[in-house]
Amino acid sequence: MLETILNHRSIRKYKPDPVHPDLLKEILLAGTRASTTGNMQVYSMIVTADKAAKEKLWEAHFKQDMVKEAPVIVTFCADFNRFNLWCEARKAKPGYDNFLSFMTAAIDALLVAQNVALAAEAKGLGICYLGTTTYNADKIIEILNLPKAVVPVAAFPIGYPDENPELTDRLPLEAVVHYEQYSEFSPGDIKILYGDKEKMPFYQELLKINDKETLAQIFTDIRYTKSDNIKYSQSFLKVLKDQGFMNNE
Amino acid sequence: MLETILNHRSIRKYKPDPVHPDLLKEILLAGTRASTTGNMQVYSMIVTADKAAKEKLWEAHFKQDMVKEAPVIVTFCADFNRFNLWCEARKAKPGYDNFLSFMTAAIDALLVAQNVALAAEAKGLGICYLGTTTYNADKIIEILNLPKAVVPVAAFPIGYPDENPELTDRLPLEAVVHYEQYSEFSPGDIKILYGDKEKMPFYQELLKINDKETLAQIFTDIRYTKSDNIKYSQSFLKVLKDQGFMNNE
Repeated sequence: MLETILNHRSIRKYKPDPVHPDLLKEILLAGTRASTTGNMQVYSMIVTADKAAKEKLWEAHFKQDMVKEAPVIVTFCADFNRFNLWCEARKAKPGYDNFLSFMTAAIDALLVAQNVALAAEAKGLGICYLGTTTYNADKIIEILNLPKAVVPVAAFPIGYPDENPELTDRLPLEAVVHYEQYSEFSPGDIKILYGDKEKMPFYQELLKINDKETLAQIFTDIRYTKSDNIKYSQSFLKVLKDQGFMNNE
Repeated sequence: MLETILNHRSIRKYKPDPVHPDLLKEILLAGTRASTTGNMQVYSMIVTADKAAKEKLWEAHFKQDMVKEAPVIVTFCADFNRFNLWCEARKAKPGYDNFLSFMTAAIDALLVAQNVALAAEAKGLGICYLGTTTYNADKIIEILNLPKAVVPVAAFPIGYPDENPELTDRLPLEAVVHYEQYSEFSPGDIKILYGDKEKMPFYQELLKINDKETLAQIFTDIRYTKSDNIKYSQSFLKVLKDQGFMNNE
């Protein structure tokens, strides 16, 4: 178990080999063993294997080729739809059209996603989370025909790896773990915590390619800009409203 | 790996035995191997072992006794604070004070949480997600002294199990998996999917105890009511605003 966790690499190149339906089921079933609020299971997983549908998802996911090339894409959704239908069929009045319920369902869906990711990796398959899921949730909703009360929060391809990347660097554990109280970082702390990362040849090269003075500028000016973040904040909040999760009064 | 996933039980009773600091570190380190958006690691884990601090968290978590009894509580936070400090120290202007950035960081934190949960279980420890984390995020922020740009999204005790509960029931896989397109459920589908669950003696007993006609009513009328959901939606949205994640214009 720990070995699978410690060996995780995001896989961006896949062999065309299909994932056997029984194996896929076994992996998705592992997803359902994740903790879920009140055992409500307020999530869903949408499996896309159809070529034309993958092409549409590829557009929504900023044309990342792995979305077309992997045999299967799984989209993980915060989903109160099925639960609401059950309530309505059982003389119960659901009150889950609000932001807290979205959070509850999103948390459910993300724990399932990580179980599925690890189960796939334990079976020799690869995955790569698509951060673009929240950016273009509106397009994904259209492509997958998601009803009200369903919002995609994560997605990844599953397939046999056609690359063998190195383990990605991580900050020292002290950067992300605090004992008892949050201990605020001094400029000296930041220097120490990011020092090794900033010295890595990979990132030094990235600076040159992008003609930037600091690695942080590659994030703020190129990869995750304020204007993009604002644009996608607005569109994701609109998705929450349109899908019926913003009735908070 | 799959075995650990398939054997998950939420543990609500813990032995008082401490978790060795080296073991805890090993488990938290496994958390950091989870996928993270752009390798930004925009999350943090707060470890609470102090008795008085656990007592305060116990209050925030609706006085669930496991919060006092387990040796350690770990709180997982969406955290752009450290990343913002790094940007500011490196002539870069962070634009992460918006809702999309919160979602990005929350997703990061939840994948870490599930890695930590599974790593703990693989080592013979138990955990139980505390759904109350999003309800009383404001109180938890105060207790743990979380700065701006940090919001708790999940938490669980870690400790040696003092109970051995049965595996929890789950809906059939067809309730949560859709192929190619979301297939809306007919009343007949709902009946079939929830049939086995509703017949279980455990839930039949719950109906009697709570004097309700249907199991769904236990959720809508007692456990997850509309008025509670609205109350906690408002308080969590206020937390997002106060922590600086709602500048979306």
